[in-house]
Parts: sequence; C-alpha cells; structure tokens
Amino acid sequence: MQCPIARSLEETGDGWSMLILRSAFMGVRRFQDFQARLEIAPNTLSRRLETLVEHGLLTRRAYSEKPVREEYELTEKGLDFMPVLLALTAWGNRWLTPEGVAIECVDPETGRVLEPVVVDRQSGAELGAGKVALRAGPGAKPAIVRGLQNWVVMGQRYPTDDTP
Amino acid sequence: MQCPIARSLEETGDGWSMLILRSAFMGVRRFQDFQARLEIAPNTLSRRLETLVEHGLLTRRAYSEKPVREEYELTEKGLDFMPVLLALTAWGNRWLTPEGVAIECVDPETGRVLEPVVVDRQSGAELGAGKVALRAGPGAKPAIVRGLQNWVVMGQRYPTDDTP
Repeated sequence: MQCPIARSLEETGDGWSMLILRSAFMGVRRFQDFQARLEIAPNTLSRRLETLVEHGLLTRRAYSEKPVREEYELTEKGLDFMPVLLALTAWGNRWLTPEGVAIECVDPETGRVLEPVVVDRQSGAELGAGKVALRAGPGAKPAIVRGLQNWVVMGQRYPTDDTP
Repeated sequence: MQCPIARSLEETGDGWSMLILRSAFMGVRRFQDFQARLEIAPNTLSRRLETLVEHGLLTRRAYSEKPVREEYELTEKGLDFMPVLLALTAWGNRWLTPEGVAIECVDPETGRVLEPVVVDRQSGAELGAGKVALRAGPGAKPAIVRGLQNWVVMGQRYPTDDTP
C-alpha cells in the first residue's frame, strides 16, 4: 500500500486522531485536558494517544516525578501536519458555516485574516482540481508503475463514458 | 460544535470517506470500480457513498436507463476538497516513504515535480506552526468567543508549565 494519502490516514485518519492533533496544536498537553476538551472516552483517548506516540507525531514528557505525570508534545513530524489541519479549516469555513465563520485564521502579529490555500512551492500557482497529475516516483513498486503508466490528473472532469 | 476541522471531519473523517474521495479524484465513478480499487465491503462502500452524496460532495448520475445504473461525480464542494488531499499527500511523501516516494505530484503539462505547500493567499507566506492564530469570527457562539478570548497560536511551543 504505497499511496501517500492512505499511509497518512493510517496514522491520523480515524477522526479522533485528527481532533487530538488539533487540540495539541491549540496547546493542550495533558490527558485530562484532552478528555475535557474532546468529550472522549478515556480508553479511546488513551489508545489514540498511544498510536500517535508510536507513529512519532506526539512524544511523552514527564512533568512530575512523584507521582509520575506525563504530558504530550507535538514532535517535528506532528507539527508538520499543520497544513492538513489548515486545509480542513479552510474547506470547513468555505462550506460548513451557514451561520457565519466561527473561527478565523489570523496573522498572530497583525490580526489580518489569513486564507490558507495550497500552492506549488516553486511557482506559487494554486493547486486545485485539474492542476496536478500523479506519476510513479523512484520508490514505486511495479503495481504503482503499471497503474500510473498514463498519468492521472486529479479532479479532471473526464468526458462521460456512456457504456454500462 | 463550531470548529471547522471537527465539522469537516464529520463529513469526511472516517478514513474510508477520504479514500473514496481520493479515488473519485483519480477518475473512479462506478460502484464496482470503487469496490475493486479500495477492497472495501459493499455495504460499507454503499453507506459511505450515500453519506458523501447527502453531504453534497458527490452527486449521482444515471448513465444507463435500462437497467438503471448510476455513477458518482464530484460536485464543486467535493472538488474543492482537493487541497486537503494534497496536504495529506505532501505530508505522507515527506514522512512515510522510507523506500522513496512512490507517487509524485507533477504539473500535467510540463511534468515538473510539484511541492504542495499551504500559504496565505494574499501574502504568499507559508503557514506552518506558530504562524496562524485562531480568533472568534462573526458567526461564533458565546462558548467560542469565551474560549478564544486570548487568541490561540496554532503549534506554538509554549513555555513548559511544571505545575502538576
């Protein structure tokens, strides 16, 4: 299973995990604070935190020796997940706010409202439907190489094929 | 529940739904093709497709009258989800490809490798950890307004608080 989306979702894609990461990005560090914020069953929270630690998105740090108490910190890998959360935020704010935007992204220094968009780093061109093709890379296994022999353009509107 | 990430995940966040959207972006339209591609149980697939149609990310279109056969197309709302999938792709390619990148994003016209990054539309500045604050917007309910009275900077490394 070499699809990077599938692999990313294996580590983060059960809904709760992304909400835990979101809370960690908002400064939550302790078990009881995650629990209060998320209204999640303790055993579910405990399992999800464990998985995020195993996959290296969070790390545990003792903040008290007696009794032993630990908190959770985002690692570099975890912090690097922020673009995914921003893309979800932007989509949610565009499509799911019939009552008006409840949570805005702003520049921490100036307060200017930010609009997160995905672009190509080099050209700065916005990458939406029809603007990105998928091609087998150097690490592709034969099945991927075969499957992507013709590049697939993401979100291209294909001509309708009327054969059943 | 006004968090745009939580709302977005309510519509797309069970793992399967994002993989179905990914396949739709790659041109898959028919039930049996989703099933073959995803190796998903038919009743699970059927339920997830139904939910994506209900939420307006996919739409059903009959491509045959007798027998009635339908296929699934991305709507504008569904096509607009592409930045989330690109952010997941980029993160997966950065962190989860020990054997080398298997699937590259390239420009469909030139074949140049693309690197999807999230920036602010106006300034072009990259939006990573510490660069975005969350503020209550015009549609915020009182609980959000209270919770965000002090802006929360996403991914800021807070000074460690040693009180248990």
